[in-house]
Amino acid sequence: MLETAELGHTIGKRAFDRAEPKLREALVNAQYDLMEGKRKAVIVLLSGVASGGRGETAKQLSEWMDPRHLRVQAFGERSPEEAAHPLPWRYWRALPPRGRVSIFMNAWYAEALQARVSGRLDDAALDATLHAIREYERMLAHENVLLLKFWIHLSKSAQKRRLAELDRDKARTWRVTDGDWNRARHYARHHDLWEHTLRETSIGEAPWCVVEGVDERYRDLTVGSILLDGLNRVNTPPTPAQRKLERAQRPAAVSPAVIDNVKLIRDLDLGQRIDDKRYERELERLQGRLAQLTRRKRFGKHSLVLVFEGTDAAGKGGAIRRVVGALDPRLYEIVPVASPTDEELSHPYLWRFWRHVPGLGGITVFDRSWYGRVLVERVEGYCGEADWLRAYGEINAFEKDLVDAGTVVCKFWLQISNSEQLARFRAREKISFKRFKITEDDWRNRKRWPDYERAVADMVERTSTEIAPWTLVEAEDKRFARIKVLRTIVRQLEHGMDR
Amino acid sequence: MLETAELGHTIGKRAFDRAEPKLREALVNAQYDLMEGKRKAVIVLLSGVASGGRGETAKQLSEWMDPRHLRVQAFGERSPEEAAHPLPWRYWRALPPRGRVSIFMNAWYAEALQARVSGRLDDAALDATLHAIREYERMLAHENVLLLKFWIHLSKSAQKRRLAELDRDKARTWRVTDGDWNRARHYARHHDLWEHTLRETSIGEAPWCVVEGVDERYRDLTVGSILLDGLNRVNTPPTPAQRKLERAQRPAAVSPAVIDNVKLIRDLDLGQRIDDKRYERELERLQGRLAQLTRRKRFGKHSLVLVFEGTDAAGKGGAIRRVVGALDPRLYEIVPVASPTDEELSHPYLWRFWRHVPGLGGITVFDRSWYGRVLVERVEGYCGEADWLRAYGEINAFEKDLVDAGTVVCKFWLQISNSEQLARFRAREKISFKRFKITEDDWRNRKRWPDYERAVADMVERTSTEIAPWTLVEAEDKRFARIKVLRTIVRQLEHGMDR
Repeated sequence: MLETAELGHTIGKRAFDRAEPKLREALVNAQYDLMEGKRKAVIVLLSGVASGGRGETAKQLSEWMDPRHLRVQAFGERSPEEAAHPLPWRYWRALPPRGRVSIFMNAWYAEALQARVSGRLDDAALDATLHAIREYERMLAHENVLLLKFWIHLSKSAQKRRLAELDRDKARTWRVTDGDWNRARHYARHHDLWEHTLRETSIGEAPWCVVEGVDERYRDLTVGSILLDGLNRVNTPPTPAQRKLERAQRPAAVSPAVIDNVKLIRDLDLGQRIDDKRYERELERLQGRLAQLTRRKRFGKHSLVLVFEGTDAAGKGGAIRRVVGALDPRLYEIVPVASPTDEELSHPYLWRFWRHVPGLGGITVFDRSWYGRVLVERVEGYCGEADWLRAYGEINAFEKDLVDAGTVVCKFWLQISNSEQLARFRAREKISFKRFKITEDDWRNRKRWPDYERAVADMVERTSTEIAPWTLVEAEDKRFARIKVLRTIVRQLEHGMDR
Repeated sequence: MLETAELGHTIGKRAFDRAEPKLREALVNAQYDLMEGKRKAVIVLLSGVASGGRGETAKQLSEWMDPRHLRVQAFGERSPEEAAHPLPWRYWRALPPRGRVSIFMNAWYAEALQARVSGRLDDAALDATLHAIREYERMLAHENVLLLKFWIHLSKSAQKRRLAELDRDKARTWRVTDGDWNRARHYARHHDLWEHTLRETSIGEAPWCVVEGVDERYRDLTVGSILLDGLNRVNTPPTPAQRKLERAQRPAAVSPAVIDNVKLIRDLDLGQRIDDKRYERELERLQGRLAQLTRRKRFGKHSLVLVFEGTDAAGKGGAIRRVVGALDPRLYEIVPVASPTDEELSHPYLWRFWRHVPGLGGITVFDRSWYGRVLVERVEGYCGEADWLRAYGEINAFEKDLVDAGTVVCKFWLQISNSEQLARFRAREKISFKRFKITEDDWRNRKRWPDYERAVADMVERTSTEIAPWTLVEAEDKRFARIKVLRTIVRQLEHGMDR
C-alpha cells in the first residue's frame, strides 16, 4: 500500500493557490453544516512516518477550518490517571460529540506499533490488537462517528532529506529530536510492520488513505479534499433509494437462537432457600471476606465492576446494599442507569458507561447497565435490530478491555417467577417506601414477560464469556440470592487477584 | 463552639431502636422526593477530629438511604492530575447534580487545616483561605446546592479512649494509624485552630453542626435528623409569603454605577489603525514570540486562559485564529460558549467553565465565557438581578483560583462602532462563508446596543482586577485589534512566567 506514496507527488504553487481558497471555503461551510445537522461526529486520524508532516497538516486543517469548532488531540505518554484505566479509556474520553470534528494524532496506531517495535507485543499479540482496533472502528462507524484515517508517508530517502532540512532550519530545530533520527535509522525494518498494519486495518468502514508527505502542498490539499468529501457525505441526507440499499446490506434479522434457549432461564430452581441462621452467619462471613479482599494492597492493581440486571422487583437493590455494606463507602460508586443525558446521547452507546469505569483500586456497581441495549431496547424497539444484534460483540470487546486492565467483572441476572413478581408488586403498592413505588411501566413490562425471557436467554448465551461470565441468581428467596451474589463476588475476586 | 460537644451526649438503645426505623423511612422518601423534584443538590460535609467516627457515619447514612443514589467522596492526597489543576478543581468535579445527595469527607476543611498545621499557611493566609471558603459556600447556596456541614467532635480524653478501643479491636485495627496517634497527641494545640475555623466559616447559608462523636447512636441519629430536616426543607416548595420574604432579603437592585461609566467604552479611540507592512512584521514577530514562550520548559509550571468577548462582528474569531496560529495545536483547546447542556444546567453556573480549565502546560481559549452572565443574561433577563449582581464577586474569586495555580488570565473586550457593525453585518449577508452567517438574533441584539454598553462598562469596572485585568481592544481596524491582542498576551505571559 505504501509504494504509491513514494513516487514524489507534487502540486505546483499556482495550482495550489487556485485550489486553496475554494477548498477552504467549502471546508468551513461543511463544518458549519455538520454542526447544524449533527448527523455524525468526525475524527481525522493522522498517523504515519516520523517527520512526514502530521503536525503541519493538523495545523493547516485548523487554519483552513474554524479552529473554534475543531479539536486537535495528542495522545503521548500515558498520564498516571490514564495508566490506571483500561487502554481505550483515553480514546473514549476524547471522542467528539455529533456535529464536531476532532483530529486525533496517531492515537491507537502509534501505541500498537510502538509496543510491537519495543517487543512488548509479539506478532500474534499485535494481530490480536489490530483485530480489536478493527472492531472498535467498526463500532464507531455504526455509532455515527465518521473516521477518516490518513497515513502520511515518506520514502526512506525523502525522510532523511526532510530531517536534515528541519535540522538546518534554526527556527524549527526544536522539532527534530534524537528519537526521530533513531527511528529513521530503522526505516527498513519498520516498513514491513507499517504495511502489515495498514493492510490489516483497512476496513470498509474506515479505509486508510496513504498520502505522500514530501510536498506539503500535495499533502495538505489531498487530506483536505478527502476530509471535505467525507464531510459532504455526512451532511447529505441519504436518498430513499440509498436508505433502502443500506437496510438491505445490514446483517439479516437472524433469529438469534433456533433452539429453545429460554430453557436456561425456566429451568432455574427457584425453590432454593436458606434459613435465617445460616443466612446471618454466611452474610457476615462473606461480607468480612469481601472487606478484607478489597483492603488488600494487591487490590490496588485491580478494580471491580459489578453488573446487576434482573426482572423487576427481583431484589437488585437489596442485593446491592448487602454488597456495598461490606465496602468502604469512599471506594465505590453506584451507577443507577436511567435515561441518558443529551451529552450521552451525542456519543456512541458505550460512552456513558466508559465514563464510570473505575481506575485501579476502584469499584463501580452498575444498577442496570450496557445490557439495556439487548434487553429493554431490544424488547421495546428503542433501537433497530441491527443495533442490538451487533451490541453483543461490542459488549464482549468492552468487557475484554476491562479484564485486560485487571478489572474483575461480575455480572448477575436475578430471576424470580411470574407469580412472585405479582405478589411483590401487590405488596409494594401497600407500603410507603417511595423507593419501591410501582409504576405504570412496571405493569406494562410484566405483560412482555416472554419477550424478556427470550432476550435474557440470548444475552446470557452470547455474552457469558470465560473472562466475564454471567451468574444466574435464583432470587425467589431474597436471602438465598444475596448469599449467592456475595459468594460469587468473593470467588471471582480471589481468582482474579491470583492471576 | 466545641464545649457543648464534649459533654458526653448519649442515646439509649431502646430510644434508638424506636427512632431508627422512622428516620430511615423518612430519609429514603425524602431522597426520592429530592430526585423527583430536582430542586437542589445536597452535600453532606463530614469533618471533625480523628477517630470521631466520620467514616462510620458516612456508612450509616448510606445504609439508611438508598446507596444507589448517594455518593461518598473522599478527598485524600491530590492525584497528579488534581495537583496540576487549581485547588478547587477537584471539588467542582465532584459536585452532585440537582436531585442528588453526596457525602464529602473532610473536603476543603481538612486541606486548609492541614496546611496551617504543617506551617504552609500562616495565620493571615489561613484567614484568607477561610474567607475564600465562605465565598465558595455562599455561591453554592445561591446556586441550588444545600450544604450541610458536620463537625464530629470528641473531647481529648474521649479521643484517647476511642483510639485505644479501636487499637484493641483486632477486626478493626486497620483503621488506627500512627498518624492518628500523632494527631491525638497535639489535641490541645489544635483545639484553638478548630474553634477559629468553625467560627470563621459558620455562615448563615451553611452553618456548622457540631456533633459529639462518643456515642455512635447519638452521633448518627443527630446527623441523620439534621439531614432529613434539610431534605424536607429543600423538597417543600416555598409558600408565596416565603417567596416574597426571600425576594425582600435579596440584595437591593442597586443601580451598579451612578456615574456615567459608559464613557470608558465610548471614549475608546476607534480610529487607531495599523498599515499592512507593519501589521505583517508585527504579526510574525509576536506569533514567534508567543510560540517561544509556550514552548519554554517553564511554561509547564503555568497555564494560559484567554477570554474573548466583544460586540457581535467585532472580529473575535479572526483574533483567535491569529493567536492559535502561533500555537502547537495539540496544546490548546478552544471552547466556543453556546447553550449549556442539561448536565451543565443541573450544576452551579461556573461548573461548565471549570470543566475546561487547563492543567499545567495547557491553554484554553474561551470564545465568549462566564461573562455571559453579566452581559447577555443580564441584558436579556435570562437570570435574575440578584444572580448577575453576585456574579461579579464569584467571577473574581474564580479567576483568583486560576491565577493562584499559576494560570495567566488574559481577558479581551473587542469594541467596534455601531456604524461599523452595521457595515459588517451587511457585508456578511452577501458572502457565502457560513461561519459569518447573520441571524435574527444578531439584528435583535443590535437594537439593545445601549444596554450592552452599560453592561460592558459595569463588567469592566467590577472585574478588571490586578491579577486578571481586562484589555479593551479598539477593533474598528481588525489588524490593529489582532496586534494589540497578541502583544497583550505576550506581555502578560512574560510577566506571569517571571513571577
